[in-house]
Amino acid sequence: MEGQKVRLLGAWGSPFVHRVELALKLKGIEYEFIEEDLKNKSPLLLESNPVHKKIPVLIHGNNPVSESTVILEYIDETWPEIPILPKDPYERAQARFWAKFIDDKCLPVSWIAFTTQGGQQEKALKEAQECIKTLEAALKAKFFGGETIDYVDVVGNFLGYWMRILGEAAGIQYYDAEKAPVFHSWIEEFTSVDVVKESLPTHDKLLAYFKGHLEALHSTSTSS
Amino acid sequence: MEGQKVRLLGAWGSPFVHRVELALKLKGIEYEFIEEDLKNKSPLLLESNPVHKKIPVLIHGNNPVSESTVILEYIDETWPEIPILPKDPYERAQARFWAKFIDDKCLPVSWIAFTTQGGQQEKALKEAQECIKTLEAALKAKFFGGETIDYVDVVGNFLGYWMRILGEAAGIQYYDAEKAPVFHSWIEEFTSVDVVKESLPTHDKLLAYFKGHLEALHSTSTSS
Repeated sequence: MEGQKVRLLGAWGSPFVHRVELALKLKGIEYEFIEEDLKNKSPLLLESNPVHKKIPVLIHGNNPVSESTVILEYIDETWPEIPILPKDPYERAQARFWAKFIDDKCLPVSWIAFTTQGGQQEKALKEAQECIKTLEAALKAKFFGGETIDYVDVVGNFLGYWMRILGEAAGIQYYDAEKAPVFHSWIEEFTSVDVVKESLPTHDKLLAYFKGHLEALHSTSTSS
Repeated sequence: MEGQKVRLLGAWGSPFVHRVELALKLKGIEYEFIEEDLKNKSPLLLESNPVHKKIPVLIHGNNPVSESTVILEYIDETWPEIPILPKDPYERAQARFWAKFIDDKCLPVSWIAFTTQGGQQEKALKEAQECIKTLEAALKAKFFGGETIDYVDVVGNFLGYWMRILGEAAGIQYYDAEKAPVFHSWIEEFTSVDVVKESLPTHDKLLAYFKGHLEALHSTSTSS
């Protein structure tokens, strides 16, 4: 299977797609990126992920794999060189625990914190900041992976890059760098890594995209 | 690590705990079950899972692992004999995809379908039945694991046992056996397996438990 063609169905503005891109780039795997128009999904996307009809989908040979964390595990098992998950079962369990914490706990509250208003927004922002506090305590080195990026860092790019810029677009302070120095330093280190910088959209492009997204969202919610 | 003591912090009424018990029993791993009082959680639980403070927690030697699907992967990696996940990376990805589908999509709607009333209940029940339809199409053999139980079957015990009895307690038909023959036959086969029968609470005990739970829930919601 290693030699087969790799295609990634994605969209440049999706942090979930970028998890997959980052893993592929870290491992030096060649792939074709196919930009999807999410308002007019391609037949290839619809048949590759008939259950969710969502990106990212990795197509390896003719085998489609969906769900970003499932794809990351697949990539790590198929191309085991330059592993992104630790080798030891207990450390692997810890990595999966934190990835799940980010996806199940931090991600929904951060999204609500920056895309709603009033009391709901306030409550979610507090919860998002609690998440950061918890991650601060979990981070024991430069990266979650130690001296190099691993699975949790790749999953965490959602918080470390996208949410900070979404917060900026919403005009809300995501976190106070002085109160969350470890998290802040993780973001700085993470976004300084060459392969991360190469794979992420630029700050200005993403800020403009999120501003447009929020404007559309709020105009819909006030006109309904 | 294989020889170290295994403890499981759980509660008999939790389907998530039973996923772990089932995996341990399938592999013939000896363990001590520690029943937690969820209204008065033990110091051991609080220090073993400080982030969520939830069961199940598997403690292997002195290493605690939380989150049922993370624990299942840990068990499979630590005791690789009698694997519960398939060996092939693509089949593993498929198994993880369906487990995630059950947890992220089917589980919340099934729970809402049986614990709420009115329009919310009706909408969730429809979604729960859609889930069953999707799983029907995914099930290609006697079990998700083929001729023997695997990871998806273990995760799916939530739908295959607990939700059917919760539906009975709520007086709501979970699914129509004639319209979902494959799902129905999977439940029948799954609950006939010796190790499953041994590890699950009896129908009557669980029905009484759920009835009590629903009564408490509805009396709170109507008195508030």
